[in-house]
Amino acid sequence: MRLTSMKKLSARGVIKEMFKTSSGDTLDYIFHPRSIALVGISLSSSDSITRIFLDSLLAFRFEGAIYPVNPAGGEAMGLKVYKDIEDCPEPVDYVISMLPARLSPGLVEKCVRKGVKAIHFYTAGFRETGEEEDIKLELELARIARNNGIRIIGPNCMGIYCPETRLSFMPYFPRESGPVGLVCQSGNNSVAIVNQARWRGIRFSKVVSYGNACDLDESDFLEYLADDPETRTIGLYLEGIKDGKRFRDALGKAAKEKTVILVKAGVTQAGVRAVESHTGALAGKDAVWDALCKQLGVIRVHSLQEMVDMLVTSTFMPRPGGRNAGFVGTGGGPSVLITDDFETRGLGVPPLPEGLRKRVRELVPAAGNMLRNPIDCAQSEKLPEVISILAQWEGVDFIIGLLRIGFTRPGTTPEGMRQFRRLQNLLNGLKSISKPVAVVLEPIVLPEDMMEFFKISQMFTSAGIAVYYSSVSAAEALSAYVRKLGSNQ
Amino acid sequence: MRLTSMKKLSARGVIKEMFKTSSGDTLDYIFHPRSIALVGISLSSSDSITRIFLDSLLAFRFEGAIYPVNPAGGEAMGLKVYKDIEDCPEPVDYVISMLPARLSPGLVEKCVRKGVKAIHFYTAGFRETGEEEDIKLELELARIARNNGIRIIGPNCMGIYCPETRLSFMPYFPRESGPVGLVCQSGNNSVAIVNQARWRGIRFSKVVSYGNACDLDESDFLEYLADDPETRTIGLYLEGIKDGKRFRDALGKAAKEKTVILVKAGVTQAGVRAVESHTGALAGKDAVWDALCKQLGVIRVHSLQEMVDMLVTSTFMPRPGGRNAGFVGTGGGPSVLITDDFETRGLGVPPLPEGLRKRVRELVPAAGNMLRNPIDCAQSEKLPEVISILAQWEGVDFIIGLLRIGFTRPGTTPEGMRQFRRLQNLLNGLKSISKPVAVVLEPIVLPEDMMEFFKISQMFTSAGIAVYYSSVSAAEALSAYVRKLGSNQ
Repeated sequence: MRLTSMKKLSARGVIKEMFKTSSGDTLDYIFHPRSIALVGISLSSSDSITRIFLDSLLAFRFEGAIYPVNPAGGEAMGLKVYKDIEDCPEPVDYVISMLPARLSPGLVEKCVRKGVKAIHFYTAGFRETGEEEDIKLELELARIARNNGIRIIGPNCMGIYCPETRLSFMPYFPRESGPVGLVCQSGNNSVAIVNQARWRGIRFSKVVSYGNACDLDESDFLEYLADDPETRTIGLYLEGIKDGKRFRDALGKAAKEKTVILVKAGVTQAGVRAVESHTGALAGKDAVWDALCKQLGVIRVHSLQEMVDMLVTSTFMPRPGGRNAGFVGTGGGPSVLITDDFETRGLGVPPLPEGLRKRVRELVPAAGNMLRNPIDCAQSEKLPEVISILAQWEGVDFIIGLLRIGFTRPGTTPEGMRQFRRLQNLLNGLKSISKPVAVVLEPIVLPEDMMEFFKISQMFTSAGIAVYYSSVSAAEALSAYVRKLGSNQ
Repeated sequence: MRLTSMKKLSARGVIKEMFKTSSGDTLDYIFHPRSIALVGISLSSSDSITRIFLDSLLAFRFEGAIYPVNPAGGEAMGLKVYKDIEDCPEPVDYVISMLPARLSPGLVEKCVRKGVKAIHFYTAGFRETGEEEDIKLELELARIARNNGIRIIGPNCMGIYCPETRLSFMPYFPRESGPVGLVCQSGNNSVAIVNQARWRGIRFSKVVSYGNACDLDESDFLEYLADDPETRTIGLYLEGIKDGKRFRDALGKAAKEKTVILVKAGVTQAGVRAVESHTGALAGKDAVWDALCKQLGVIRVHSLQEMVDMLVTSTFMPRPGGRNAGFVGTGGGPSVLITDDFETRGLGVPPLPEGLRKRVRELVPAAGNMLRNPIDCAQSEKLPEVISILAQWEGVDFIIGLLRIGFTRPGTTPEGMRQFRRLQNLLNGLKSISKPVAVVLEPIVLPEDMMEFFKISQMFTSAGIAVYYSSVSAAEALSAYVRKLGSNQ
């Protein structure tokens, strides 16, 4: 719907329309479907690969109608199985298809007759194989869809996770929504990002894994998320793009309104070949991506871990006014390493001025502590007071707490009790100051204590504090965050 | 003992002497003490900071005599506490001191009278505080020791871990010995390295945390490990060096015989300040270190995680003949990322030749798999056969298995059973070929499944296979390993 038809709309409609993309309405159906058919679902409960979508909808208690479809009929998880999509008793908004590739064009035609708005093809075996017949099959799929106004997600992808409408492709994903939208070409990588981010306190508004992008592509989803009031930060994992000009515009618009973080995969010669073999996309030149991101103020990162670290940073940490860090924590060795990690990445670690150093020395002894910056005094009960002195120092723009989480269980041994007390002191100190703060918690625990470590980590994320698991991660994320600042100024 | 006195030695003694440093004999006493006194130990069992050395010796069942020393006398953990070091009934080879700094020179004098060979000062509060009186105290300590032929480790450090002689500074460190020696100026960082490396299958011959190095320094320990037949790989974490010329010679000699991996901390301006504040060392210029490492064939890394990854590489992986990787594993997204990670770091990922590709296609279908390189077919039962085809390809120098370890417990759910089967297939395939192999296991599990993940990881380490926990880690380590190759050729 474009300008010509706007006069038919109410004022509210016009405003809504002005902020919508051409595919916005269809995408609303995709993220808020009233009914879903699962076509080609296996009837064997042990075939978790095609059962995962049904399992997810049931685990999330999807509120609309769910129609499993399989020519054998019968029942699946207490639901009637329909022999054909056209047998479903009510309208179907959204279809998830696990049919083999060669049966897919026929399904699209049936879906058109049934009035389906959009189809997600989980099915692989299209353009990404590089075989001529498979490429033709994908083109055929796209042609039928385009001619009939039905939209396709995929093929060769995991589709949609939208906690608000209880739509998910993994049964164990978090039920709660959050401010992060994720557009991720790879299904596998979208699972990895959601799963790693959740333990750092990140929740998602919408996640899309869109695979080969034969119809709906990265620009469609990016435009939608740029307008989505629930989404404050957008993560992008791209292997290739379909329409450079349109994508550039969408990226620029999104980055103006929101924090956008990009992993561009397929940046090397072999990486480009791997992309072709994975989603059949054209990968593009690495330097062009660097320049584009710099120009538009997009934060570019190079691994999923860096992506998660940046999502954490942008979600929890207010933007610091500059590049200088004040460190407070424990351990001489860790303090030396974090200083190098930050300075080699363009951040500053200025020395504590003599006046402030004297005030710190009045609180904690010099022996066994480092009282310059980093200030290594986490063993001291005076830690919160030291943090408040650091916070008054105009020479630093943000404060980082640094703790190695050791080998003893907090609360159960004397050293564990002390460690827990240090953690609480650090948390209280950081919570009580107004400068941007974050914390680096480095686990050096035994595997059986990892659960304990994650609980400690959640003490901080629950208080709205960004947590990193290594000083290198913190340095990478904060240097990118501060560079992004520079590009906006 | 130098050349002039060599004539007094037997032929065997002369050869032994030629391969010993001047401090070699004393260091033998340090790593193989017959008796240990713990001076200044707290009598309160909840004071784990000074009790940790006693706890460790008892946990390791140290076979020699242990003498706790505290002016209060009494008992500790069933051992008689002596009021003074001179009261100990038998000779004392080695002393661990937790006395306050100002009492330390007096202790050295007593130790001289008692015939002690070496003292480890855990105590801090010397040169690293930057205070004039503390610096003087440390110089005094070194002077008394030198004048009387007694050697000092530290002050301000954790001392020695030597599983063979049941000497440890952490009660839970592994009891078994291994081929890795570690010289680590920081106590905190030595704990982190040992603890992270153990889960990757690494065991240690000797670990030294030596702090301020007022007497014995990095060169002494490096020379000792270079000659130590139990040590094949040497890890170094240095903040500064005492004698540039001597260190350079020791490093060159060590790197000729063994794989040497270095973290040089304190490489930035602020990092140098942090080093002064931690161990009072002079840190030196970053570029000089780069040049030195390149010239001598030392592998330089920049974080503790990279150190552990390199220890794993050098322990488990035979040196590949070149830089080209063949990948076999699961997941399109992970395959694309690992390709970029390797190529951006100078490694090669050549495309699978058409002939071999045809042979792979006969085993696994193209749909849902990637059959170029990476080969993404871990779901297939034919995985071991595919690996053996890859192994015959002369275009690659080593084979990397890649698996994301997912959300289901191996062996307990249908998907878990399949995952376990994939892991076994991968392990069997990799074990049966003669090319160098390694595996990347990326955990995307829930925290409560981390124990399960570590067990999976140990399936591979027990089989002598290097395991990395991310494709970035693998790429960093292997590119450094291959570069080191280049420098030796």
